[in-house]
Amino acid sequence: MTWVQRRITLGPKPRGFHLVTAEIESKVPEIRGFSVGLAHLFIQHTSASLTINENADPTVRDDMESYFNDAVPEDAPFFVHTAEGPDDMPAHLKSAILGSSLLVPICEGRLDLGTWQGIYLCEHRRRAGPRHLVVTLTGESS
Amino acid sequence: MTWVQRRITLGPKPRGFHLVTAEIESKVPEIRGFSVGLAHLFIQHTSASLTINENADPTVRDDMESYFNDAVPEDAPFFVHTAEGPDDMPAHLKSAILGSSLLVPICEGRLDLGTWQGIYLCEHRRRAGPRHLVVTLTGESS
Amino acid sequence: MTWVQRRITLGPKPRGFHLVTAEIESKVPEIRGFSVGLAHLFIQHTSASLTINENADPTVRDDMESYFNDAVPEDAPFFVHTAEGPDDMPAHLKSAILGSSLLVPICEGRLDLGTWQGIYLCEHRRRAGPRHLVVTLTGESS
Repeated sequence: MTWVQRRITLGPKPRGFHLVTAEIESKVPEIRGFSVGLAHLFIQHTSASLTINENADPTVRDDMESYFNDAVPEDAPFFVHTAEGPDDMPAHLKSAILGSSLLVPICEGRLDLGTWQGIYLCEHRRRAGPRHLVVTLTGESS
Repeated sequence: MTWVQRRITLGPKPRGFHLVTAEIESKVPEIRGFSVGLAHLFIQHTSASLTINENADPTVRDDMESYFNDAVPEDAPFFVHTAEGPDDMPAHLKSAILGSSLLVPICEGRLDLGTWQGIYLCEHRRRAGPRHLVVTLTGESS
Repeated sequence: MTWVQRRITLGPKPRGFHLVTAEIESKVPEIRGFSVGLAHLFIQHTSASLTINENADPTVRDDMESYFNDAVPEDAPFFVHTAEGPDDMPAHLKSAILGSSLLVPICEGRLDLGTWQGIYLCEHRRRAGPRHLVVTLTGESS
């Protein structure tokens, strides 16, 4: 039984949905040391989020951005929290809907995603900096 | 401290929200061996999802299907990813909103759900095959 | 390696989004005993939920309540499950969208939240009682 906890930073990304599976795997090589376990990815921000979705066709990520912009509009007449810009409150809402963390099974040193699954960083701000994640691994070391 | 990881398959289900608590418990009898722990259920697909909700009245599941079909329509004019059918991109979006995994406490050999809570498999495609889950259990064995 | 599982109750709250980080930390002092680990918060109800969001400006919580009331209206013509009041089915839907549980990293005896992150109890019913949570901690004790 082993615990590994790493702080990693994902470089700044434009607003939208970004496939980051490879970036995360390369920054947390300790995943390879677990025969069985769980990988917890936690984003320490409230205007970006993490989700899992289709890893092949970039139009899925484009349509996600279009859909959430439509479902959570910037100009909702009832928003009061507007001082930090029109994309701020929608970013908080998208973050609540999509979620701040992921828990992924580890099997034989690999994130045990389905064939078509990838990890998305969802950047909800127009001008965002780097995003900080706490990655916690636990399981049996191989 | 023990780790158990099992691959299970839930049989094909029609589009909609389905209560699968008993099906999961019967396919992962190892849950009964933990005095305290966590059960992680992870669906390896991007057009079906897992959630927890009311386990008694089937109209809740019907209303969920109606609501999400209304909130994520098939004919959104901005969808570009349409080659796999009109229910494909909405399925990806519902999966992102509802989530790909659940983490449930285990107490004395049982999933420690509230009285009215059940585990739902949310099938978002019209013609879906079986759905594959990775179930990871960790805790203290009893 | 240690496991701690505690049942805690959060006092009744009005409908809306409530910051409960301090209330949870005070009711689970065992968090301080872990050098590294994970804290799982699981709400045993289907008409209230848990999420993480901005911890500073109360208008964020107000706008969340406004947004979700708009996105999940009480008078949707397709709702069938209406016997328990107009806020019941919307409460189930908000619970599915926002989620029943959170998993938060523990580092050096503290929940490792970002500077602006707080834990929200989202109360979706108009007249709600106390809410029961199962809190499961696992990690290395310090």
